[in-house]
Amino acid sequence: MNPIKHIKIKKGMMVSELVENMGDAGFGAKKINQAANILIDMYKDKDCKIFLGVAGAMVPGGMRELIVDMLDRVDVFVTTGANLTHDLIESLGHSHYQGSETDDIELNKKGIDRIYNVFMKNEVYPDLEDFFEKNWKHFQECKNIKEFLWKIGEIIGKGLLGKCYKKKIPVFCPAIADSGIGLMVWGRKVAGKNIHIDAFEDMKEIIDIAWTAKKRGVIYIGGGTPKNFIQQSLQFSKGADYGIQITTDNPSGGGSSGAPLKEGISWGKMNKEARFVDVNCDATIALPLILGYLKEKI
Amino acid sequence: MNPIKHIKIKKGMMVSELVENMGDAGFGAKKINQAANILIDMYKDKDCKIFLGVAGAMVPGGMRELIVDMLDRVDVFVTTGANLTHDLIESLGHSHYQGSETDDIELNKKGIDRIYNVFMKNEVYPDLEDFFEKNWKHFQECKNIKEFLWKIGEIIGKGLLGKCYKKKIPVFCPAIADSGIGLMVWGRKVAGKNIHIDAFEDMKEIIDIAWTAKKRGVIYIGGGTPKNFIQQSLQFSKGADYGIQITTDNPSGGGSSGAPLKEGISWGKMNKEARFVDVNCDATIALPLILGYLKEKI
Amino acid sequence: MNPIKHIKIKKGMMVSELVENMGDAGFGAKKINQAANILIDMYKDKDCKIFLGVAGAMVPGGMRELIVDMLDRVDVFVTTGANLTHDLIESLGHSHYQGSETDDIELNKKGIDRIYNVFMKNEVYPDLEDFFEKNWKHFQECKNIKEFLWKIGEIIGKGLLGKCYKKKIPVFCPAIADSGIGLMVWGRKVAGKNIHIDAFEDMKEIIDIAWTAKKRGVIYIGGGTPKNFIQQSLQFSKGADYGIQITTDNPSGGGSSGAPLKEGISWGKMNKEARFVDVNCDATIALPLILGYLKEKI
Amino acid sequence: MNPIKHIKIKKGMMVSELVENMGDAGFGAKKINQAANILIDMYKDKDCKIFLGVAGAMVPGGMRELIVDMLDRVDVFVTTGANLTHDLIESLGHSHYQGSETDDIELNKKGIDRIYNVFMKNEVYPDLEDFFEKNWKHFQECKNIKEFLWKIGEIIGKGLLGKCYKKKIPVFCPAIADSGIGLMVWGRKVAGKNIHIDAFEDMKEIIDIAWTAKKRGVIYIGGGTPKNFIQQSLQFSKGADYGIQITTDNPSGGGSSGAPLKEGISWGKMNKEARFVDVNCDATIALPLILGYLKEKI
Repeated sequence: MNPIKHIKIKKGMMVSELVENMGDAGFGAKKINQAANILIDMYKDKDCKIFLGVAGAMVPGGMRELIVDMLDRVDVFVTTGANLTHDLIESLGHSHYQGSETDDIELNKKGIDRIYNVFMKNEVYPDLEDFFEKNWKHFQECKNIKEFLWKIGEIIGKGLLGKCYKKKIPVFCPAIADSGIGLMVWGRKVAGKNIHIDAFEDMKEIIDIAWTAKKRGVIYIGGGTPKNFIQQSLQFSKGADYGIQITTDNPSGGGSSGAPLKEGISWGKMNKEARFVDVNCDATIALPLILGYLKEKI
Repeated sequence: MNPIKHIKIKKGMMVSELVENMGDAGFGAKKINQAANILIDMYKDKDCKIFLGVAGAMVPGGMRELIVDMLDRVDVFVTTGANLTHDLIESLGHSHYQGSETDDIELNKKGIDRIYNVFMKNEVYPDLEDFFEKNWKHFQECKNIKEFLWKIGEIIGKGLLGKCYKKKIPVFCPAIADSGIGLMVWGRKVAGKNIHIDAFEDMKEIIDIAWTAKKRGVIYIGGGTPKNFIQQSLQFSKGADYGIQITTDNPSGGGSSGAPLKEGISWGKMNKEARFVDVNCDATIALPLILGYLKEKI
Repeated sequence: MNPIKHIKIKKGMMVSELVENMGDAGFGAKKINQAANILIDMYKDKDCKIFLGVAGAMVPGGMRELIVDMLDRVDVFVTTGANLTHDLIESLGHSHYQGSETDDIELNKKGIDRIYNVFMKNEVYPDLEDFFEKNWKHFQECKNIKEFLWKIGEIIGKGLLGKCYKKKIPVFCPAIADSGIGLMVWGRKVAGKNIHIDAFEDMKEIIDIAWTAKKRGVIYIGGGTPKNFIQQSLQFSKGADYGIQITTDNPSGGGSSGAPLKEGISWGKMNKEARFVDVNCDATIALPLILGYLKEKI
Repeated sequence: MNPIKHIKIKKGMMVSELVENMGDAGFGAKKINQAANILIDMYKDKDCKIFLGVAGAMVPGGMRELIVDMLDRVDVFVTTGANLTHDLIESLGHSHYQGSETDDIELNKKGIDRIYNVFMKNEVYPDLEDFFEKNWKHFQECKNIKEFLWKIGEIIGKGLLGKCYKKKIPVFCPAIADSGIGLMVWGRKVAGKNIHIDAFEDMKEIIDIAWTAKKRGVIYIGGGTPKNFIQQSLQFSKGADYGIQITTDNPSGGGSSGAPLKEGISWGKMNKEARFVDVNCDATIALPLILGYLKEKI
């Protein structure tokens, strides 16, 4: 048994040193270190295809660059339509803003939308409209959600979608209709402009990758549809060999977002010999720590 | 100010009496009563179109009949593919089982899938396959997710989907590919059997209902895609006039599932004069209480 | 394996029927039923000494009568000074009030103290002062916290402390100084009025009961000092044979309030053959359900 | 409004740089930065008396050195008996160990006590016994809890208590009986060895400090008795001018541990012009970040 060594803060201490120290502590600190080390092994394992699932408003929360960086090693990216909409909004030149849990009636009058302690201006919507209006003919060529998202990435050339397109990283978003991007498509469709995006077509690709990979690693930030979509693609494979989950939800309600990774072993979504850890923490705190360690060690 | 009156338990006490008593107490008890009373007013308001969003594994958790009953008054039903898959599994004659948080490796060997303290047998999958194989030609006629789900309901004739079909309740599931039902469609598609379900087509209908309704009521059980899909359809309407949210997640991570309803006011998803309440509770406990009160009062 | 049977709400349904139905469901609903059944067996077991620990503001929350009723069967009662202060405040004729999560600066101006969605008026303090001033000589006779609390109960004759005194139920409150009652004692002490209450003296009695009981049952509402004080008295006994815990906290931070009961097995605080269940729920919702079932079955 | 700037990880990045970056992000990351900056201002304000409350098993979790460091600036320290017991255990030469959420029955057989993912050996108890047996006569001189704890600190000369004694920092632990240290005192008392520690005596000192300070700063790690004991000492002062709370509990159950700091404004425990922030995070993750920033900036 390893004795707990107490964390010490030194002047000039690096993030990687802190996470190293956390590895000698307990509770969540230890789990941050475990996650960081599992991630390193996952990254280093050349046989391992990495599936990254991101739910929660990570782009408004300030995690966009970190996720863009992760895409350098990720083989499959699954996220919510909300994150992709917020990504596109920033690619179009808009910002999200620091706010507070304040009077929502006042915010509404000012045309400001609140996401916990982050604000967004309603003035983003006309620019979103323009973008889709102007580029509509390109989207009409797309047959599945991934092609549609890559097309946005190709046109916009930056952010999460720009990176996915450039690096040809399959990006999936099963609930794409459930987002601001969805609203833009709806706007064109009600105006009589056709588009035919198949709801199921992407499944073949994600399942092919899951089944043919020599090894599989999963990174779940926040549960939701991204986690579940990755998990089901793994269900009839040999299961994930590496796993990290960062969530603020808890298991007691029976939902997938709070379910611990080990539950996935029963389903075959997680391999019974897998190395994995659940980190119960706000991802905007946990993720920079984990990636700060990774940066130094790889 | 109303003084707190302490809850008293009497022999033979009815659920509705307990919830009535809760209305004189504080904390979550008071919120159960508030939710029940808002629900009654929502139900009674003939101008009010009701949008029910259900995330979390409510069918495995034993809430199927309660939700089927709610559909009698609901105008729009949005849920996860998981809930609809579990619903179909039960409609095909299978059960879910009471389990515990036990050894997942053992469960995997026995072909049992765990959802917190509920089990499902892997033997459901061949019957799911048969159902889709046998009825495939009917599904090939469907052009959007709602038609596809109604078709399942028409064929199976019971459960959530049977009820939606019979009562012609629009049922939406933006992330349908993210589910066991999705896997079944995938299985046919990889075998070369065509189907063309559009990912965005349902948006027109839900937004039409949201925008044309005289009033709007929302019931969110568990957040996730169902909550968000309803919220976005309301965003450019006058917002919901009544709202109930039951969730075990909390706001601190910035995600939609834990966000309080009042945040929706800034976005215009919730009307600034709306009556609404957040119930922080496992829905398998809160929902029967709320509906038990409703049963007596309507 | 027992199949999940879905909860059905009937007109006129009793609380006990609902909890019976919950026993056929999953997730938290099932746990409410398990807790109720364990409680019944604990109550019926004549060899079993029952230790009730209550943290959290259960008196302001409207749970006072329920806890008073539980004392009929409880052998040891441990709670926070806050609960006992709120109990005394009500015994002195004051009420707590239904409130909301509103502007705390406004409340402060009005002399109102907020406890989540419950209010208390500052005008309770002069009456508390009077009570202690008038009865001070009686308290000066007390040598330990239990005697002191019984003395309050003897004088006031009602509520939690009245019941404890009348039924000679040992009532312990290790952190009594940490409460409004503590402030009242402090007020007298700074005025030069003596009192000598020993901080450790009660331990002998609770440990004696724990060690000499044939069997032990524990009921923890909300963790904190009450849970821990009971647990440590059991640590070197044979451990609890029955256990119920109702909490909204979770294990991830490593604290006792969110720790699952099974952790106590390692310490010997819980017997390895014990029957126990953790209910993750607001106690103001869970407790009335559990006691409603009990009322019918005993 | 400040635009969100996305966190970027650089090679060699310091903890203080990360926390600086977090100040430009949202959600919990932003709150870490806010807490760090409020702490700096609190530390720098020479008129400010700082009250540190620590609940939760922070010593087993690996936070002992960080808290020892904080004591250099802290004017009043309130914690649980558990933390002080674990502190003494380490001062006696024992360690806590890294563990996992494993089979508690096995652990019990091996004489290992589990605290989430941290282990402690039962073999610590004989050494604790020896310590109190050997030094009993010194403790018999003590009249209040603070004197008793300082005496331990004087004898043991290190750790939290050693530091409090050396620096003459008032250390309060209202529920001292509720701890392993309490058990040791009990063991002597049942053997007929006298000691007279007054349960209320410490209140005078903490309230004096609270009322006479020009300004007041509060740091609550984990809620519980330490938070409440500090808050009540502030209730009839002008309230805290600075505040930080780090907790994994949430407000929904109405308990103090999850209550947001702003609730304290209604009570007068927090000044209405105070600068404060609630950090919803495991303290073993949040605290090193906050202190890492502080180290660089002061």
